[in-house]
Amino acid sequence: MQKVGILGGGQLGRMLLQSAANYVVETWVLENDEECPAAHLCHHFIKGDIRDFDTVYNFGKDLDALTIEIESVNVEALEKLESEGKRIYPRPAAIRTIKNKVLQKDFYRQHEIPTPAYVITQTRSELDEHTGMLPAVHKIGEGGYDGKGVQVLKSSADFPTGFDSASVLEKMVDIRMEIAVIVAVNDAGETTLFPPTEMLFDPILNLLDYQVCPANISQKVLWKAEAIASKVARDLQSPGLFAIELFVDKDDEVLVNETAPRVHNSGHHTIEAHYSSQYDMLWRIILGLPLGNTAAILPSAIVNILGAEGHCGPATYEGFDEVLKIDNAFVHLYGKKLTKPGRKMGHVTILSKDRTDLMHKANKIKHTLKVVSR
Amino acid sequence: MQKVGILGGGQLGRMLLQSAANYVVETWVLENDEECPAAHLCHHFIKGDIRDFDTVYNFGKDLDALTIEIESVNVEALEKLESEGKRIYPRPAAIRTIKNKVLQKDFYRQHEIPTPAYVITQTRSELDEHTGMLPAVHKIGEGGYDGKGVQVLKSSADFPTGFDSASVLEKMVDIRMEIAVIVAVNDAGETTLFPPTEMLFDPILNLLDYQVCPANISQKVLWKAEAIASKVARDLQSPGLFAIELFVDKDDEVLVNETAPRVHNSGHHTIEAHYSSQYDMLWRIILGLPLGNTAAILPSAIVNILGAEGHCGPATYEGFDEVLKIDNAFVHLYGKKLTKPGRKMGHVTILSKDRTDLMHKANKIKHTLKVVSR
Repeated sequence: MQKVGILGGGQLGRMLLQSAANYVVETWVLENDEECPAAHLCHHFIKGDIRDFDTVYNFGKDLDALTIEIESVNVEALEKLESEGKRIYPRPAAIRTIKNKVLQKDFYRQHEIPTPAYVITQTRSELDEHTGMLPAVHKIGEGGYDGKGVQVLKSSADFPTGFDSASVLEKMVDIRMEIAVIVAVNDAGETTLFPPTEMLFDPILNLLDYQVCPANISQKVLWKAEAIASKVARDLQSPGLFAIELFVDKDDEVLVNETAPRVHNSGHHTIEAHYSSQYDMLWRIILGLPLGNTAAILPSAIVNILGAEGHCGPATYEGFDEVLKIDNAFVHLYGKKLTKPGRKMGHVTILSKDRTDLMHKANKIKHTLKVVSR
Repeated sequence: MQKVGILGGGQLGRMLLQSAANYVVETWVLENDEECPAAHLCHHFIKGDIRDFDTVYNFGKDLDALTIEIESVNVEALEKLESEGKRIYPRPAAIRTIKNKVLQKDFYRQHEIPTPAYVITQTRSELDEHTGMLPAVHKIGEGGYDGKGVQVLKSSADFPTGFDSASVLEKMVDIRMEIAVIVAVNDAGETTLFPPTEMLFDPILNLLDYQVCPANISQKVLWKAEAIASKVARDLQSPGLFAIELFVDKDDEVLVNETAPRVHNSGHHTIEAHYSSQYDMLWRIILGLPLGNTAAILPSAIVNILGAEGHCGPATYEGFDEVLKIDNAFVHLYGKKLTKPGRKMGHVTILSKDRTDLMHKANKIKHTLKVVSR
């Protein structure tokens, strides 16, 4: 039986482990929080810091393979483990490129992958030299996550909110739509793509609001999106699962926004809506099994269940029963004890042939289910 | 957060826990085998004998609710826990009735539920008095499971294979088809039924071979099946999930074969093929949430993956890759380390609108995937 470790124990790890139980595999999780969403669903939970060299190295040294559910891991330890013959999904070099937004942008440029125009800034004061980039998005090189580490700079008046360390200053694109394509790559380099998902964001929290799959795009945009997503995955030269977030601009040009080298929020719907889910697919890759079928059983939407504004503390769920009565909705709660504004507490997937039904139910769920603290 | 315990840690517990991770619930498993399929998927694994009074009582006394994944549990301990206010799914009285096949048959008779003609035998020698029942099936009152404790008696020459303890001698029915209906009952007594599943058995191992849902039955048979299944669940006077196995005879009469007061092999396909799976449904019942939608997303078949004849020992899977390449198949392995002939090692669900495709793939899988020991 293969021994596989996961760095990180959040909801992505939780869903990965739900899926692991369809296979024969012994699972390990490394995470600082003993009450994290994935802690009780593995064979062996190890409490420890995924950013610490010794902790990660010791966690991995007796395992056959490792994967991640978050990028903020100790890459040096993974590189040492890789050099000792451990299989890592994705390869540490790919994590290193992606986890730093400066390196990630340079990777796109080096590989001639279309991405919004940008400059690198090292200090906040450098922003003054780049007023020609406005309106722009400022993205911190390391440490950004879940809407943190990203600032919209509409005019130079916003410069004080910019970052005072190595960051990407990216010219804002006139976006028609945001989509995401998940690419699976196995050890032999074979790849398969999930159908693009259309993403809709909450303008205030800068977090994903809801998403629909398949995206409502033309054949031409689909081809561009697939070609670009394939190229990103190929050029990263690593097996694993990659979620490529793309902008479609008003001229139907497709640009890479960013890449996640792991299972991703934009693939949650695949659990119920697709033959092979993103989680199933990653196990197939790690265990050396044939790639799965990415086709949809039915079109789908997901609604993220986020902690309500003004509520911090033990989580309770309002409107939960009403959502559970919706006949084509699938509820996933992540079991996090504490809520805070914008925290990802769960998601709901809706299946329907009818896009109007998907959007209608998504809106209903968004306005019905609230995570509060009482 | 509710604390819920499961008695038994086999594959049904495993799938129940995969589903539990969609909700906010703290889970306990009681089982003698620390390497059982469910052991690593709960918050708290307790090693112990589910048939022992003190063990079951101590396991349950600090929990909010309990359920079972096998009937051979200590009912007295559950009765004591129930008297102390614990919620038990199903109620201990229902388990007591069902776990003993003599009591189960008497329950059907008392409630005028159609079931094959039978007599009770206390000793093997009594069989000689009932040659008029032949051909018959002899079912031991307590302790039968997975094809054990059941003997076909075609003529009096087979009497030596009968049981020498309290047993049911049941007249064999001229069967057109076997079907199963799963009924869900919540605390308020509200019920919902899953569509009938058609079951096909291996004549040698007397274990389920494959099954198709929905069953290919007339509207009239459907109504009878639903009426009878509803009555069984109602008359057991208990919330929980009940799988009612039914015979349809050559005259389209519907008779109860037997009932399982828990999630059941005949409902595995609901994981992928139905909006609410049987596992999801049981959590909704236990946690006091609205009942789910039992409708099928697509028609489905399942193939049981059984240990191959002549193989005992550490399990390996032949033909696994070929099955994983089938584009509408969903593989579930239960992670059991040891195989033996006829042991349930996994199952594969197939989804398709086309019944011919379902049967074709089911046969292909049955003849491709082998569990052996090398």
